[in-house]
Amino acid sequence: MKAGVVRAGIVVTGTEVITGRIADANGPWISERLAELGVEVAHIIVVADRPDDLEHALQFLAAEDMDLIVTSGGLGPTADDLTAEMVGHFAGRPMLLDEDMEAKIREILRRFARNRSFKFDEEAVMEANRKQAMVPEGAETLDPVGTAPGLVVPAGDRVVIVMPGPPRELQPMWPRALETDAVRAVLARATPLHGLTMRMFGVPESEIAKSLREIEDDDGVDVEAVEVTTCLRRGEIEIDVRWREETEATALAVRDGLRRRHERETFSLDGETIDEQVAKLLKGHRLGLAESCTGGLVAARITNVPGASDYFAGSAVTYSYESKERLLGVPRPLLEKYGAVSPECAEAMAKGALAAFDADVAVSVTGIAGPDGALPGKPVGYVCFNAMLVDGTSIAREPVIPGDRADIRERAGLVAMHLLRNLLS
Amino acid sequence: MKAGVVRAGIVVTGTEVITGRIADANGPWISERLAELGVEVAHIIVVADRPDDLEHALQFLAAEDMDLIVTSGGLGPTADDLTAEMVGHFAGRPMLLDEDMEAKIREILRRFARNRSFKFDEEAVMEANRKQAMVPEGAETLDPVGTAPGLVVPAGDRVVIVMPGPPRELQPMWPRALETDAVRAVLARATPLHGLTMRMFGVPESEIAKSLREIEDDDGVDVEAVEVTTCLRRGEIEIDVRWREETEATALAVRDGLRRRHERETFSLDGETIDEQVAKLLKGHRLGLAESCTGGLVAARITNVPGASDYFAGSAVTYSYESKERLLGVPRPLLEKYGAVSPECAEAMAKGALAAFDADVAVSVTGIAGPDGALPGKPVGYVCFNAMLVDGTSIAREPVIPGDRADIRERAGLVAMHLLRNLLS
Repeated sequence: MKAGVVRAGIVVTGTEVITGRIADANGPWISERLAELGVEVAHIIVVADRPDDLEHALQFLAAEDMDLIVTSGGLGPTADDLTAEMVGHFAGRPMLLDEDMEAKIREILRRFARNRSFKFDEEAVMEANRKQAMVPEGAETLDPVGTAPGLVVPAGDRVVIVMPGPPRELQPMWPRALETDAVRAVLARATPLHGLTMRMFGVPESEIAKSLREIEDDDGVDVEAVEVTTCLRRGEIEIDVRWREETEATALAVRDGLRRRHERETFSLDGETIDEQVAKLLKGHRLGLAESCTGGLVAARITNVPGASDYFAGSAVTYSYESKERLLGVPRPLLEKYGAVSPECAEAMAKGALAAFDADVAVSVTGIAGPDGALPGKPVGYVCFNAMLVDGTSIAREPVIPGDRADIRERAGLVAMHLLRNLLS
Repeated sequence: MKAGVVRAGIVVTGTEVITGRIADANGPWISERLAELGVEVAHIIVVADRPDDLEHALQFLAAEDMDLIVTSGGLGPTADDLTAEMVGHFAGRPMLLDEDMEAKIREILRRFARNRSFKFDEEAVMEANRKQAMVPEGAETLDPVGTAPGLVVPAGDRVVIVMPGPPRELQPMWPRALETDAVRAVLARATPLHGLTMRMFGVPESEIAKSLREIEDDDGVDVEAVEVTTCLRRGEIEIDVRWREETEATALAVRDGLRRRHERETFSLDGETIDEQVAKLLKGHRLGLAESCTGGLVAARITNVPGASDYFAGSAVTYSYESKERLLGVPRPLLEKYGAVSPECAEAMAKGALAAFDADVAVSVTGIAGPDGALPGKPVGYVCFNAMLVDGTSIAREPVIPGDRADIRERAGLVAMHLLRNLLS
């Protein structure tokens, strides 16, 4: 083991997860939280609700010498929910009834039943839920957020944190697990990892790899001493730099080297997303949108931010000639001459949005999302944008966006956000 | 091993995946494909790009007696990409240069360079990519979709399928892996699993559990003989029933028992989603939308379906009094008397959408998505809907939707889709 390195494994249980019916949110979430604490996650194992598979996964992680094991799921009241018992068995600790916990669960269920005005067959329900109050001897319990308590179970040289499956129960319970003595003792051995996130738009991932080599070779920075992860996320490049105390200067040199080489494309040095930046820039403005191929996606992004009603007037999602004419006043002859997917139409739509919403800033999007609809000289993915201020200042773009229908629509929404940012800053 | 049961484990590599920066799509996708073939997936293991962790995961799956192991990722040209070599080592097969494959990769890279008009330092690139042509002795290669070939590697009693990480390379390559002799021999031992998917809206998950118990106890159906998974997915209940040949009658009895007990709430017996159903029902119609709190999400759902322009005229996303007045003709006195979040306003918005878009069907949504904006008698989550035909027939609803801002907005979009379905069918 490297000095200061604490390693962890995560076991996610659930047949729905392994069959792909629901995406596992817990493994990555826990992994990210542990990374922030300086813990290195080596394995995330997803197992079905079969007792053997869970037990074998625990044994594997023990054999891999993990300092910390975190499980999620399998704490419900039904017979399938076996995690607590399997972890007890793994830790060599018999299961005992925790009477305080039983009383707490009873109280939670009573309240629950009252609120829903359910008929409450107390004995039947308590029988099922008594199981949830059975805990391995010597384990610390974490009060339920739903009805299932969490557990912190010492198991020889390691500690097992047992968490419920629903993210809305797991996430609020997590900080409490970190406060237990057993977990604090493990974490005390880890050197915390610091991180920063940069975001760029309009640069290929391979260029970043090239820049990192230059930073190493030309600038003489020991890039290997920090952890740099580059990730193409929804059309933007997200670069994470992580470091431990002693290599902070290296991390900052990497950041500065990347920024210098990609000045124009770097829009965020502090992890702030484009949507957050645009929301800030829109304060004091009044925004109107005119959307065609994005079909409301730009409006949905804008209104995803709480408080958007302070600056967002609305969006005219116009999918037909008639609606472009009626709602946005795009002249029919213009539509007939240039077509609905044209820089001319995009400009008229932006003007129309300024007028229709009495706005001082507008952006329009009109394009061919496919799979059908390509025209001579206008392939699938051809999208026209116009971002315009009420004084007439405007930015127009007409890229051909690669990908399938969903990619093109989403990427077009992203381009619209970046044009808004450029126009307003 | 159960007769006819073939078990598989999946290893997903990638530091970006384990740190949660990108969600793993491959594990669940492969798992679902294997389940359809009757293969039982016991473990999905996500490992970082560290050779030991990958090797130990393979050894664990061997010890668990998996018949089939599938890996994804780690096939790129860089030194971090170690999967082929680790699998070769695991299978006890030395790595050899596959010259045919080397020539194929060279050709792909040449074409790639020409298309992008990159400067192509052939020797440097081929050096890096020669690595991708190194394959374990006796393995079958699968032609690259990107630049990385896939592999099928016999390893003692089991077979390892080695796939590239990007889903757009993995998914087209998958069928070719299934056609290899080694994989066919394993799959021949599996009894294919059949499946059906039902969807319900407006019924709590616990009711389905209760119904399944009744189907067992009252109808005398051996529910345990088939596999039933219930999953709350974006506000709807998805019920998957899976069975092998001999228990088909049981599966159909489960389906019919559930349908009989939840006639009103069952909207799909064949897995069709609400968005697909609404798209079919809208054929020959002309739809206009009036959205407030959903902020374009309903329009985005509707236009997500290719060909939506045949029936979708547009959406007026109106986030202010002014825009409701101007675009939808909602009378100012009505807004002042009842407020923008009211059944009266929803009705006026639906009428306005019919007029503005010259539509024959419309649906309106206006509500309080939160976190702020609650009013006396109108809590966060209170949403008013009106679905209306041009003849005046309409359905109005005003539920209080639980959850946070994102939940409320998404669920409101879902309710709008179900109201459209009810209105049109």
